[in-house]
Amino acid sequence: MNEPDAALKTLGVSLGDRSYPIHIGPGLLGDPQWLTPHLAGRQVMVVTNDSVAPLYLETLKQGLPDDLDVREVILPDGEATKNLANVERIWDALLAAGFNRRCTLIALGGGVIGDMAGYAAASYQRGVAFIQVPTTLLAQVDSSVGGKTGVNHPRGKNMIGAFWQPRAVLVDTHTLATLPPRELSAGLAEVIKYGLIRDVDFLAWLEASMAMLRDLDAAALTTAIERSCSIKAEIVAEDETEQGVRALLNLGHTFGHAIETHQGYGHWLHGEAVGAGMQMAAELSHRLGWLEASDVARVRNLLAAAALPLAAPGDMRAEDFLSLMRLDKKNLDGRLRLILLGCLGDACVHDATPPEMLVSLLEEFPRA
Amino acid sequence: MNEPDAALKTLGVSLGDRSYPIHIGPGLLGDPQWLTPHLAGRQVMVVTNDSVAPLYLETLKQGLPDDLDVREVILPDGEATKNLANVERIWDALLAAGFNRRCTLIALGGGVIGDMAGYAAASYQRGVAFIQVPTTLLAQVDSSVGGKTGVNHPRGKNMIGAFWQPRAVLVDTHTLATLPPRELSAGLAEVIKYGLIRDVDFLAWLEASMAMLRDLDAAALTTAIERSCSIKAEIVAEDETEQGVRALLNLGHTFGHAIETHQGYGHWLHGEAVGAGMQMAAELSHRLGWLEASDVARVRNLLAAAALPLAAPGDMRAEDFLSLMRLDKKNLDGRLRLILLGCLGDACVHDATPPEMLVSLLEEFPRA
Repeated sequence: MNEPDAALKTLGVSLGDRSYPIHIGPGLLGDPQWLTPHLAGRQVMVVTNDSVAPLYLETLKQGLPDDLDVREVILPDGEATKNLANVERIWDALLAAGFNRRCTLIALGGGVIGDMAGYAAASYQRGVAFIQVPTTLLAQVDSSVGGKTGVNHPRGKNMIGAFWQPRAVLVDTHTLATLPPRELSAGLAEVIKYGLIRDVDFLAWLEASMAMLRDLDAAALTTAIERSCSIKAEIVAEDETEQGVRALLNLGHTFGHAIETHQGYGHWLHGEAVGAGMQMAAELSHRLGWLEASDVARVRNLLAAAALPLAAPGDMRAEDFLSLMRLDKKNLDGRLRLILLGCLGDACVHDATPPEMLVSLLEEFPRA
Repeated sequence: MNEPDAALKTLGVSLGDRSYPIHIGPGLLGDPQWLTPHLAGRQVMVVTNDSVAPLYLETLKQGLPDDLDVREVILPDGEATKNLANVERIWDALLAAGFNRRCTLIALGGGVIGDMAGYAAASYQRGVAFIQVPTTLLAQVDSSVGGKTGVNHPRGKNMIGAFWQPRAVLVDTHTLATLPPRELSAGLAEVIKYGLIRDVDFLAWLEASMAMLRDLDAAALTTAIERSCSIKAEIVAEDETEQGVRALLNLGHTFGHAIETHQGYGHWLHGEAVGAGMQMAAELSHRLGWLEASDVARVRNLLAAAALPLAAPGDMRAEDFLSLMRLDKKNLDGRLRLILLGCLGDACVHDATPPEMLVSLLEEFPRA
């Protein structure tokens, strides 16, 4: 570690007896003080993928005490692998090792690895401990915090899963040095989301700092991750199982999931689809009279500065969006529920968009 | 209903905001007052099997309001079907129907159906409502109460699952009229278990009433089910996720699971294996100096009166038991934990059985 201690931040997620810390800082991965207090017993299964393992698996293992029984499952990389068959591979490895209900799973990788390892932990022997060690910006600011775990189904994204909280989240910002630029942009989409739904000052800071973030400026990254995780932790503490305010975290996601499902998982990155979806949500909020045209332009410019796509896939018709959006988990008893923006920095759940307004938006939105 | 209202009993399972009622009585199945208050929304998926569906599916549907969207999944019957592939069939049916997170699953059948439907509910869109309508004695007194759900894995029983509480349990004692005698005996094994672990007066009542129970005497059955569910509900309320006292409900189960796994699921009924396992636990408790020989004889005689097997499978060696018992979920960090009897009516968790004593018990126990 050559950064000062000020670069290390610890936040808490407040969920009663399931509360846990998020440690953020450079070089945390190989330091035993961060993982050891959160292990349930001596049996540890590291779940990672074949892109991340060569980069960080040995460093992580060096950060574990010597007297543990440490095993690993190395899955293929990519959103297309987020399915039940790969979760079964984790269960098979746990059973082959004879691991009991006091074992601990450590998810080392991006959101796909975290979601699968978390769901495997939630369902192994009816629930065992797990720790998130996210190595992508997207996972660091979003999926590793809040306890949503699960896998995709051919008929829809994240349809099978559980709410299962980690014992701790360990964000080593050094891991972003090896992240492909496209994945960095995808993570920035979720960072921008926090500004849009809850914090217009953070949004303004992002407008000023986007170039530094894309240059991997360490201080700027730490600030962005910390502020993002703080907003997410606040919202999750208010509403763990998404009965209310937690739905706001899905700004852009109903449109985005439709893009991901239609294109086939893995072609668009999740954050890219969410970026396009936030642009659609902003435009719809404008058509409802809530946002100014200049607000929509700010959203578009910030997404452009993050190098995110501003157009939907060329082969997606309005009816493709509509049929896929009807499967969204937020819908209740047949009514389409969307997260929209009352103003920049304040999102709301809306289930009364005039159908013809939605259809014309979907028809008129730019296509790639 | 031609029985007096006194034949209807309602118990509560106290779990804070997840508390729920158990209604026990003859003819409840077709009466809308019992199911309707517990539905989460308009979408209802009945999960049942091809033995139970012809007997009770139409009656259950008559007990649902007319304005619902009611679908059904009819799975094959038997413990051998309790696997992830059949849970996936439930998820596929829910997604094909476009059901959202406000749907309700109703488990109509024995423990296998309840365990699979419950796990499907726990993991569908990260958790939806479900109601247990158990139609076997075993499910009525055991698996439908307490929120344990899950499936078997080739390497062990109930290895994949979740703690997920039903919204209500509906026990229609009329359904026992169509239960094969062997399954009635298997259910009686769990009834006897409650007397052994917690209530020696109930044990004495069972010794006096076993013939009436096997003759399906309505009043005797109601008493046996009510007392069994009360004891289970008390224990579950004390310890929902089996950190302590709940483990006592597993008397005979570590031995029993080994028998079931070794024989292949479905050859021995769960209750039959537990019956043999309780006999082994009683004998081991005697060798440890805790039970009198006369106590062991009482256990054996009661199991015999319930027409349960008193011998282990002829092809199971002591080492078969030992290797399978080491996979038991109760074990922690390599120590074998067994539920034993301090005296009749009082069970305890014990992890210090001398290995040679366990081996000699396993070698000397009668074989079929």
